[in-house]
Parts: sequence; structure tokens; C-alpha cells
Amino acid sequence: MKYGIIGYSGRMGQAIEKLFSKAGHKLVYQKDENSEKETEKPEVIIDFSLKEAFPKTVRVIEEKKVPLVIGTTGLDEDDFAKLDKLAEEVPVIQSFNFSIGINILSELIKKVNQYVDQDWDIEISETHHRFKKDKPSGTAIMLGNLLDRDIEMHSKRLGSEFGEHEVDFASTGEVLTLKHRAYSREAFTRGALLSAEAILDLKPGFYSFPEILNN
Amino acid sequence: MKYGIIGYSGRMGQAIEKLFSKAGHKLVYQKDENSEKETEKPEVIIDFSLKEAFPKTVRVIEEKKVPLVIGTTGLDEDDFAKLDKLAEEVPVIQSFNFSIGINILSELIKKVNQYVDQDWDIEISETHHRFKKDKPSGTAIMLGNLLDRDIEMHSKRLGSEFGEHEVDFASTGEVLTLKHRAYSREAFTRGALLSAEAILDLKPGFYSFPEILNN
Amino acid sequence: MKYGIIGYSGRMGQAIEKLFSKAGHKLVYQKDENSEKETEKPEVIIDFSLKEAFPKTVRVIEEKKVPLVIGTTGLDEDDFAKLDKLAEEVPVIQSFNFSIGINILSELIKKVNQYVDQDWDIEISETHHRFKKDKPSGTAIMLGNLLDRDIEMHSKRLGSEFGEHEVDFASTGEVLTLKHRAYSREAFTRGALLSAEAILDLKPGFYSFPEILNN
Amino acid sequence: MKYGIIGYSGRMGQAIEKLFSKAGHKLVYQKDENSEKETEKPEVIIDFSLKEAFPKTVRVIEEKKVPLVIGTTGLDEDDFAKLDKLAEEVPVIQSFNFSIGINILSELIKKVNQYVDQDWDIEISETHHRFKKDKPSGTAIMLGNLLDRDIEMHSKRLGSEFGEHEVDFASTGEVLTLKHRAYSREAFTRGALLSAEAILDLKPGFYSFPEILNN
Repeated sequence: MKYGIIGYSGRMGQAIEKLFSKAGHKLVYQKDENSEKETEKPEVIIDFSLKEAFPKTVRVIEEKKVPLVIGTTGLDEDDFAKLDKLAEEVPVIQSFNFSIGINILSELIKKVNQYVDQDWDIEISETHHRFKKDKPSGTAIMLGNLLDRDIEMHSKRLGSEFGEHEVDFASTGEVLTLKHRAYSREAFTRGALLSAEAILDLKPGFYSFPEILNN
Repeated sequence: MKYGIIGYSGRMGQAIEKLFSKAGHKLVYQKDENSEKETEKPEVIIDFSLKEAFPKTVRVIEEKKVPLVIGTTGLDEDDFAKLDKLAEEVPVIQSFNFSIGINILSELIKKVNQYVDQDWDIEISETHHRFKKDKPSGTAIMLGNLLDRDIEMHSKRLGSEFGEHEVDFASTGEVLTLKHRAYSREAFTRGALLSAEAILDLKPGFYSFPEILNN
Repeated sequence: MKYGIIGYSGRMGQAIEKLFSKAGHKLVYQKDENSEKETEKPEVIIDFSLKEAFPKTVRVIEEKKVPLVIGTTGLDEDDFAKLDKLAEEVPVIQSFNFSIGINILSELIKKVNQYVDQDWDIEISETHHRFKKDKPSGTAIMLGNLLDRDIEMHSKRLGSEFGEHEVDFASTGEVLTLKHRAYSREAFTRGALLSAEAILDLKPGFYSFPEILNN
Repeated sequence: MKYGIIGYSGRMGQAIEKLFSKAGHKLVYQKDENSEKETEKPEVIIDFSLKEAFPKTVRVIEEKKVPLVIGTTGLDEDDFAKLDKLAEEVPVIQSFNFSIGINILSELIKKVNQYVDQDWDIEISETHHRFKKDKPSGTAIMLGNLLDRDIEMHSKRLGSEFGEHEVDFASTGEVLTLKHRAYSREAFTRGALLSAEAILDLKPGFYSFPEILNN
């Protein structure tokens, strides 16, 4: 596959290139705040850059008419309206968390939720590196929103932990624990790769990452 | 509900009575190896006793025509044939593990199995008290059989641990862990209670515990 | 050993009798709020009852001049003054937590504290059953007080968890976790047994449980 | 501090330079299999390269008379004899595992070992990435050797786990778990940094890493 990266020099951009190269794909387009380089027309463009770059991403996709995989965080309703408009002409896959494991975890939580009633206690814990300021993490909030009640949350800030999320379901007889831990940035780039490979076969339209995972 | 217990004096029999009483149900029939006592006709009979007692259980159900919840371990094909015959006349709910959590865990493992390919490592660990001789536990084997490949198993024997099972799914970017721990015998009696309450509305037939859980 | 129990009918009293009997010791004295029974003179008296019963315990020890192992929680300064006075005539072993493991954990925390500087993050988590109201647990506070700084604490309330305490020490390269879990009330009665067996060789005086553990 | 690295281009060499630079130290000497570069005389040389390079390391230290911090694995008795000889003229700090946490863990295991008798079960588990062939890990063996008995070991090989070691101590009432996890290569480079900073004040002699940690 010939692909492009918006935010090529950033940490996610570099990690994406590393994994995509290993998978045999060819980088033909790269863009940063003040530079742009194209050797061939890309078949898909990947953007995990910042919200600030989003207007430029929209323009690039409009011009090139190329499928888009986008993991930029902080997009708002206006931004989604723009993605919807792009999706009329090309396939767009969007998620705030492209980790395959976190998306499987979401499916599992929804499944457990069917079995457990109010007599089960549910709590969520997350651990991230000491520099992460927001508590609880956006992912913990997303997981909590899958459940039909207010959930007690615990946030540890320890060392250089890349990201751990745990959901406990307990009755008076037993406890069921679902836990996800990212080893590295590759947790997220693998989801981007899977999406980029899938997008080539998709019709124009807006797709969430779980839709891709679930085929 | 008016209920009876076969194996009333055993540890599971005692634990069943304790939970069922707390739930407002009335013990009207109790049976042990050398004793039997009936004050009223039971609406359901619970048997978590030993394989050796199984022929007598069959006779009791044949005579009384009462629904049966049975958690006796070690039943073989002949025994299941007898249960099938009973099930022509009364509803029968059978499982080797009536823990709600272990049965939810089984459903989750089947779900994860749909998402992960050969590039994910899977291993199963279980911990039980020091007196448990068999390794790995029957439940670990049952969980492993839900997956499409041979699974490496680890068995710890520690103190008086009541029973912990863990399944790890790992790619090079992340690890997803599903873990279940029983706090006490109540993990199993709660499944029996749920089954006994459900059986009153069932037609004759043979039912597995997951069928009850899934409604 | 011939021993007595104050608070014989309570859950801790019953658990103490069970373990002490198994170890071959003989119950010769038992006392509850409204009853008292003595068949022989005890060599040691164990009290894990309530603060309200403490004045009576003092009178019993004054009269009988028998060594005392006391795990009653909530004792205040006045109470300790009375224990000190008893300790002039008999050996007294006192602790708010007679679990051997928690006391080993305390020693380990003090040891780690020698190695880690301010560049290590430290957090404490504890999990107890849903009915435990106070957060964090008294034991978590006691563990936190062993460290030279304010410690972030997390309290989960899940199912019927008997009691789990975890201390995490993390630098940017690694994380060291010390965790203790009680399987049952026996975690505490074993410390009482060890103390009762040790007290027979002690001179009058006030002893903490760690002193006994450390010989 | 002015320092040198043997095995500069390797992954550990690069990780060492990164951390030492961040700490304000100055790289003045670097050596690889076929290259060598010196801008100033180093005050200490760090070697985390391969056993094959060891003879050259010995020659470099003999010539320069510079303190040595060495974490090369697989050194044998002959190699240690050579280190002893170097240690007559310069301070040498050697360890097979420069992780601070693993060395603290070793101290803790020795401490717990004083408290627990044969009635406690002890098992060791370790988890490493899927490419690690040897089971159990060298570090797990080292930890097991600190205990006075044969220890059951469990080895998981999962994803890209950097290295996790766990020791469980359990009686019938409770379980105490000591666990260490490396987040990254920095777990080891931090120990090298601490050693390099300490070595400037040491007299000639052979030192183990725990001696440095314990001052």
C-alpha cells in the first residue's frame, strides 16, 4: 500500500512509519506544520496529529480524494460535521483510541453489563505515567460510559506507565476483573495499520474503529 | 419457594441452605447418605453432592417428579443419559461450575477469540489452595477448550486460595487480561439460587447453566 | 497451653478457638458480656473483643495475674496507660493488626523507604468488602505513616473482599509492588496464636506484635 | 562527570548515553567493535556490551586506569579473576542486573525469608516478551537462590513484556506478593548512572551493585 502521514515528525507519526514499513507498505506522502513532500499519490492518509492541524487535513483530503484514517484527539461537533462531509466522497475511519485491546475491552464490558445487576459492585481504575495531569483518563471515562450507572474511578500516577485500565465487577461471592495494559505506542499504531489495510476495500462513508474490528 | 437439598450435611449443602434461607426460601426436604426428611413437597431439588449419590438422586426425581438443579462433578455419559431421561418429564439444569462469574468469563473468552489471530499470545494461569492436587484445574481446562489452539497453562498452589483463573491475550503492543476470583463457596451457591428460581418457569427439558444466565 | 478468650461468642472469638484447638491448646476460660465460665486457671488470656469491654478485661487481668494478648481496636491513650500498668505485673502483647503478613509488609515498606528518594512515586491502594464504610482503611493509614511523605490513597469497596493492601513504588524505569491479601479471619488468629505461644516465655512488660515476630 | 561507553552503538549504549546526557554528564570516549573515539580522558567507563568484547574492555581499563561499571552478562570465573586484578588498581562495580528495583526486591526477599517457615508456600512467576527463549529467566533463578528451598517457577511469554518478576508467599490465612516490572531499558541505565556517580568516590576494589545501593 502507498500511504501518507500527516504529522510525520511527531512521535505517533514516527511510530506509524516504523510499523507500516515493517508491514511492507510504502511512505509516499508526508506532511508537517511547515513542510510537505509527495513522491507518489497515496492510497490512504493517516493523521494522528493535533486538533490544530485538522483544518489542513480536511483541505488535503478534499484535494486528493484519498481515504482517511484519523486518530486526532479533541475533535468537536464541528469537526465531525466536516468529517461527515468528507465521508460523502471517501471512506473515513475515526476513533479516539485505536488500540485493538481497548476496543475489545469495550465490547467485553458491554457484554458483562448484560449479566450483572445492581447487586454487583463495579469500579474502574487506571494507571498512567506521572506526567499525565487529567484524572480520570479519557479512556476510563469512555469505558465508564458503557455502563448503566455512575462508576467510582481511581487514578494512579506512577513512573512511566504507558497506560493501564482495569474494570472490576464483584458480587459477594466472586470478582471478575478485565484489565488492559499498553506496552508501548505500538498498541495504537497496530490499530491504524489494520484500519489502513481495511479502508482500501471500503465505500465512501464514516466508520468507527469498532466497526472495522467487527468487520 | 419450597426446596429440597440432596447432600444436606455436606459443605455445599450447608452453604446452599444458608443462602436460600437468606433469600426467603423454605427448606422442606433434606437427604443425606443415611437419612431423609420431608415436611412438605419441594418445588425444586438441589444436588451438589457426590457422583456416588447420583443413582439415588435419579430415583428421588423419578418418584417426586420435581425439577432438578444439579452441580455434582464427575458425571459421565451414562449419567447424562439418565439426566436426559429425567428431562423428558421435568426441567433439569446442570453445570460443573455454577459460578456466575466463571460462566460470564467463558462468554468473554469466546468473544475475544473472535478478534485475536495467531499473532496474539494466549496463556492461562490458575491459583488454588495447597491441597488441590490436580493441575491444571478442571475449570482452566474448560476455559482453554474455548480457544482454537493449544494453550500454555500455569498452576500455582498457594495457601488457602479459593480459586483464581486468569487468561492473558497479548500482542506486541498490548496485553488484555481477564481474571476471575472466587471469594468463597457463595460464588457457586448464588448460581444455584438463580437456577432454582428460574426453573419454576421452565418446561421439562435439559438446560445448561449458561442458557439460564443468557435467558 | 491452657488459655482463655474474652469475647468468646464473637466471630473473632470463635475463629480463635477453632485455630487454638487445632494447635492442641485447651480452652479453660471464656467470657462474654453477660457470662463467664472457668474450668481451670488459664496461662494466657486472648481478647479481640470491643473497646466497650476493655475495662472488664483490665479487671480480669488484675485479678488473675495472667499474661494478655490483646487485639481490640480503637484503644486510646487512657487505655494504653492501663495496659502499661498491667504490664508491670504480667507480659502484655498488643497490636491493632495481628496479621503476620501485614506486619512483614510493614517491615518491607520501611526497608524500601531506605532506598527510594523523592524521584520515586509512591501510592497505596486497598480493597475491602462493600460494607466497610471508612476510607482509607486503618491499616492503609498505618502503612502510609511508615513513609516520609504524604501518600495518595485509593480505596475500592468490592463484593466480600476480606482485605487487600498494595503499595506501589515507581521510578521512570520500573515499578515495585508490595501486596498483601487476607484469605480469611485466620490471617489474624494465626498472629494471636504465635503471640500466645511466645508470651509464656516473656517477662512482665508491654510488647508490640512486631517485637514478637522479630524475636 | 566525563564518561566513556564501550558498546556505544548498541541498544544499551544508546540508552546509557540518553540518560547520562539528561543528567548533565559529558560523553568523552566511545568504543565499538571496529571504532574508537576519545575527545578527553574519561573519569569512568561504562560497559554493557557483550562477553565477546570483554578482553578488549580489560585492555582499555589497564591502559587508561579508569574506574569501570560493568553490566555485561555471561561473565565466567576467568573473567571475574580478570576483574579482580583490575580492581587492585581501580574501583570496579559489577552486576548482572543493574535494575534498582530488582536489587531492592532481592533485599526484601531475604527479609521475608527470616519470617516465614515451612508452613508458607513460596512460588515465583516471571513474564517476558515472546522472543525470550530461556525459562525461567536468569533473574528468576537468582531470586529463587535467595530462599532456603526449591521453588516452583512459572514462566509466561507474552507480547512485548519488558520483564516482570513476582514472588508469592502464602500461609493458609494470607498471601504476600512482591512484584517488579521494568517499564523500559531505563530500569537498567538508572542503576548504571547511580553506580557511575558513586564510583568517583570509591577506592580501588571490587564492588557489587547491592553494596552501592546500600552505601
